[in-house]
Amino acid sequence: MILGQNQYGKAENRVVKITRDGATHHIKDLNVSVALSGDMEEVHYSGSNANVLPTDTTKNTVFAFAKEYGIESAEQFGIHLARHFVTSQEPIHQARIRIEEYSWERIATSDANSRFIGADEVKHSFVRQGQETRVTQITYDGTQWEVISGLKDLVVMNSTNSEFWGYVKDKYTTLQEAYDRILATQVAARWRFNWTDDEQKMPHWEKSYEQVRKHMLHAFAETYSLSLQQTLYQMGSRIITHRSEVDEVRFSLPNKHHFLVDLEPFGLKNDTADGAVYFAADRPYGLIEATVLRDGCEARIPVDMTNL
Amino acid sequence: MILGQNQYGKAENRVVKITRDGATHHIKDLNVSVALSGDMEEVHYSGSNANVLPTDTTKNTVFAFAKEYGIESAEQFGIHLARHFVTSQEPIHQARIRIEEYSWERIATSDANSRFIGADEVKHSFVRQGQETRVTQITYDGTQWEVISGLKDLVVMNSTNSEFWGYVKDKYTTLQEAYDRILATQVAARWRFNWTDDEQKMPHWEKSYEQVRKHMLHAFAETYSLSLQQTLYQMGSRIITHRSEVDEVRFSLPNKHHFLVDLEPFGLKNDTADGAVYFAADRPYGLIEATVLRDGCEARIPVDMTNL
Amino acid sequence: MILGQNQYGKAENRVVKITRDGATHHIKDLNVSVALSGDMEEVHYSGSNANVLPTDTTKNTVFAFAKEYGIESAEQFGIHLARHFVTSQEPIHQARIRIEEYSWERIATSDANSRFIGADEVKHSFVRQGQETRVTQITYDGTQWEVISGLKDLVVMNSTNSEFWGYVKDKYTTLQEAYDRILATQVAARWRFNWTDDEQKMPHWEKSYEQVRKHMLHAFAETYSLSLQQTLYQMGSRIITHRSEVDEVRFSLPNKHHFLVDLEPFGLKNDTADGAVYFAADRPYGLIEATVLRDGCEARIPVDMTNL
Amino acid sequence: MILGQNQYGKAENRVVKITRDGATHHIKDLNVSVALSGDMEEVHYSGSNANVLPTDTTKNTVFAFAKEYGIESAEQFGIHLARHFVTSQEPIHQARIRIEEYSWERIATSDANSRFIGADEVKHSFVRQGQETRVTQITYDGTQWEVISGLKDLVVMNSTNSEFWGYVKDKYTTLQEAYDRILATQVAARWRFNWTDDEQKMPHWEKSYEQVRKHMLHAFAETYSLSLQQTLYQMGSRIITHRSEVDEVRFSLPNKHHFLVDLEPFGLKNDTADGAVYFAADRPYGLIEATVLRDGCEARIPVDMTNL
Repeated sequence: MILGQNQYGKAENRVVKITRDGATHHIKDLNVSVALSGDMEEVHYSGSNANVLPTDTTKNTVFAFAKEYGIESAEQFGIHLARHFVTSQEPIHQARIRIEEYSWERIATSDANSRFIGADEVKHSFVRQGQETRVTQITYDGTQWEVISGLKDLVVMNSTNSEFWGYVKDKYTTLQEAYDRILATQVAARWRFNWTDDEQKMPHWEKSYEQVRKHMLHAFAETYSLSLQQTLYQMGSRIITHRSEVDEVRFSLPNKHHFLVDLEPFGLKNDTADGAVYFAADRPYGLIEATVLRDGCEARIPVDMTNL
Repeated sequence: MILGQNQYGKAENRVVKITRDGATHHIKDLNVSVALSGDMEEVHYSGSNANVLPTDTTKNTVFAFAKEYGIESAEQFGIHLARHFVTSQEPIHQARIRIEEYSWERIATSDANSRFIGADEVKHSFVRQGQETRVTQITYDGTQWEVISGLKDLVVMNSTNSEFWGYVKDKYTTLQEAYDRILATQVAARWRFNWTDDEQKMPHWEKSYEQVRKHMLHAFAETYSLSLQQTLYQMGSRIITHRSEVDEVRFSLPNKHHFLVDLEPFGLKNDTADGAVYFAADRPYGLIEATVLRDGCEARIPVDMTNL
Repeated sequence: MILGQNQYGKAENRVVKITRDGATHHIKDLNVSVALSGDMEEVHYSGSNANVLPTDTTKNTVFAFAKEYGIESAEQFGIHLARHFVTSQEPIHQARIRIEEYSWERIATSDANSRFIGADEVKHSFVRQGQETRVTQITYDGTQWEVISGLKDLVVMNSTNSEFWGYVKDKYTTLQEAYDRILATQVAARWRFNWTDDEQKMPHWEKSYEQVRKHMLHAFAETYSLSLQQTLYQMGSRIITHRSEVDEVRFSLPNKHHFLVDLEPFGLKNDTADGAVYFAADRPYGLIEATVLRDGCEARIPVDMTNL
Repeated sequence: MILGQNQYGKAENRVVKITRDGATHHIKDLNVSVALSGDMEEVHYSGSNANVLPTDTTKNTVFAFAKEYGIESAEQFGIHLARHFVTSQEPIHQARIRIEEYSWERIATSDANSRFIGADEVKHSFVRQGQETRVTQITYDGTQWEVISGLKDLVVMNSTNSEFWGYVKDKYTTLQEAYDRILATQVAARWRFNWTDDEQKMPHWEKSYEQVRKHMLHAFAETYSLSLQQTLYQMGSRIITHRSEVDEVRFSLPNKHHFLVDLEPFGLKNDTADGAVYFAADRPYGLIEATVLRDGCEARIPVDMTNL
């Protein structure tokens, strides 16, 4: 019997950091998961914890670091943590920090109507955006960094400019070709930075995220699509073209089917050109997954972003 | 043995209606649930379906009506449906239509960088907002209307201007008083319109929603809070004061606890005034629920908005 | 403006009580939610907490009572808690305790093969059953008790002995009649006990639950069904007939549709009589809800067990 | 720009197969996801679907095969499907079939009380077990098979025989050592079969599952645990020792913390030896993951079974 790859740590530490700039407050709202690996044979074989920093300690470290170093960005925060675990604990050879970030926007209160309690513009009130969840994963082995950022649960739709035809037909094929369909998906994306070394200049993580997200959305909107694969590839290549800090992008795109409803039994035409009625289906769904790579780069983002 | 209240219908019909105004498209994205009641003793006692319009038919009706009448607003659509079932089916005496609405915003593609495919501003591309879910419930008995609208899953936070002290202390009380805490909640709200009759002028449902939501958020932001109950009451009374079409509001507000982390063991101060680090807890949570009513009005929104 | 019904407390206290009987251990695993009402105007109007026992205290009380009194049954535990809050706190006039219970079964280790570590039968190892969740709600106003118990998420299926035909057909009806279909549902049930007074003999809560559940399942299995409503009524009336401690039952039964798949395009017959292939659909679904009452009793279980 | 790994297909086909053996019925209830790869460059680059078998066709195939071949086991069914796609479609070089299986048990109706409708023992009525979900993944590239089976969401607990002490203490360590704690986890496990070739004798998939599950549970129950890692390793090695058809096992085990509640402020002792009261926490949680391998075998199960 051999022990294979193993890792441990505290998952889903929900840390919220408020920064006060006078009356103006700022939020960072993260869900931080720590996974450590190294000389861990004994704890598996005999139960000796002599090399084990408790998962409870990794939790404490997350909260303490949020105070000591602040949270400039999820990526920067993960880098602090990963470096700490690998450099301070001899048995730990690798640290992987995964972070989900929830974004908040200010509640605007400046219009005249709202002032009847006498408040001026409020600077400490927020509503959670609830659109995508931003994610990042930082891995450090004492020498090299790997940073893979991304997002999940960003639901997008094109109500036209999507076709699907010219496909293989076998004995189990009944699908009708479509020349004007809805294309909708719930984007899960991960992109890998080519920053790997403390000697390199670090990307501007916040700006990079905004730009990658923008290019991805624009490519989705602007692609006249003959297949979801084509749209995916455009989304990925747009990022690689515009963002030199990114070498690899992977997507997992469920095809959120919107089926044109057959209303003929009720004497109604339901043509897309007139503005149609669709049934938004749950399951099953097409699932399209692919990696887009910069020329000459090696793929490192794991293939599976889902268990289904 | 007696049969008590009973109702039946098709739940969660996921209907999406695209409206095309030239190249500019609009979306209405609803989840519609139908519940019908009336002369339904026999189907329970003997299984005779002679009075039963199939739930499948109620589903078909939802999709057909979306085409025939369009979806001006969730409320208006529910009114069409409820009226249809009660007036067209003699055994059906009451119809209740519940609708969830998911909102979408346009993907902005107008900035110069994004045009490399040659696209002009795209008018058919959307991203789902993902913040609150808007809800409505229309009930019709052939004579009177009851419209209760609302929202759920709107997460809000004040990072200051909240205190909690001066409470009862019994032998099980260990809580420390707080003079500057985070107040966060996930708003579930329902408000009842005083429109009940086809003779009355109908409210402008879309505008009403925007305004109710705005007043609610402003009240949350602007209230210096000594208890979540006080904030709730301010949110409700602000709506009643400003929106004459609403007679009753009910809230279910979980207190999403953000606990100040004790960092003293690590030699760190964690004071709110300096911008602090919090642990965002899941369970248990305080749950504050109450109704605010216009003077002289009777409460009709059911007390329980949760099963917990 | 008037304050209407209001209630507050700590929801979802996850309390686990281990009882040791020598080497044999027993588990009670509950999720307890407390809701208190009474003289609570001031906390809403001015934020004064002078009448407010903190929700944190209600949490502490749950855990302390689990130790002081043990957890004989969810119902008995809820009765202890409700009585305490109403009798010990003058401003509190009513307490409602809701409890979810998760059941565990022992891991059987007695077969010969498993003993290689030298263990005898292990008496402290459990696997969570994961079938239905048992629920109860205890309400006390200082005088009268109301106990409503039930279950949720119990998924059942009859693979035959279900028909559906003879229903109303209007212009939106396309459904084909069915003479041998699958009937499946996810049972949510609540039943109200006629125990209301400390002077009455209390039901045996654990035995009552087992018996009610058994009668419900037997009625589901043994009813040749012409409609889900008929099956529902049989399930309810079987309980009322056999269990004199229960006066009222309410069900919310989604019709978990299993559609016969059309395999004719592939040259395959798919007849139910031969054992057929079905597509298990998610949404939409029929939703059938009704109350069954003992003669002469008044309905008190709220109509809505779902928000959809 | 290069296209990297890519795959597509229909996910979550919810297929239910009833087999009738006279009045006795049997259920197979699966959730089948298809992922195909091969010569798929063009659909990504230009949107040409000339090599694309539609995901809709893969769905139809799942349902047709359930009728044509039946579902002897999830593994056998996946093997049929994977072979079909790779051998019948020239551009498809690899097929991966993932299946979740939900198990059902019969509703026992044989006791005397239940017969009042006159039913004999009912043989077509079932209740969904709801404990673990069984999973499998079959991958075929036209030559070699890889079968990885497993389960998820099996929640287990030892109420004693677990300790945790002797760990590393750094400046962020505050955890107290524990000599008698609850050990609970929600098992996610995957095990890889050494059957890879049509020439080899195929394992008995159903029996293998029962036995692997049993050994895993026994190891959990019978291990006196000094760390969750030790328990994990025992669970894995017990499988490797007893089941020659399995070469590799991987676990992802969240440590479902049950914290002893401090009841001293209320004058109560809460010692484990007396049967104690615990708070079942949600987040954060320790997460322990590792692979156990047969000597001389190579690890092939992906490291990450979760995104957190």
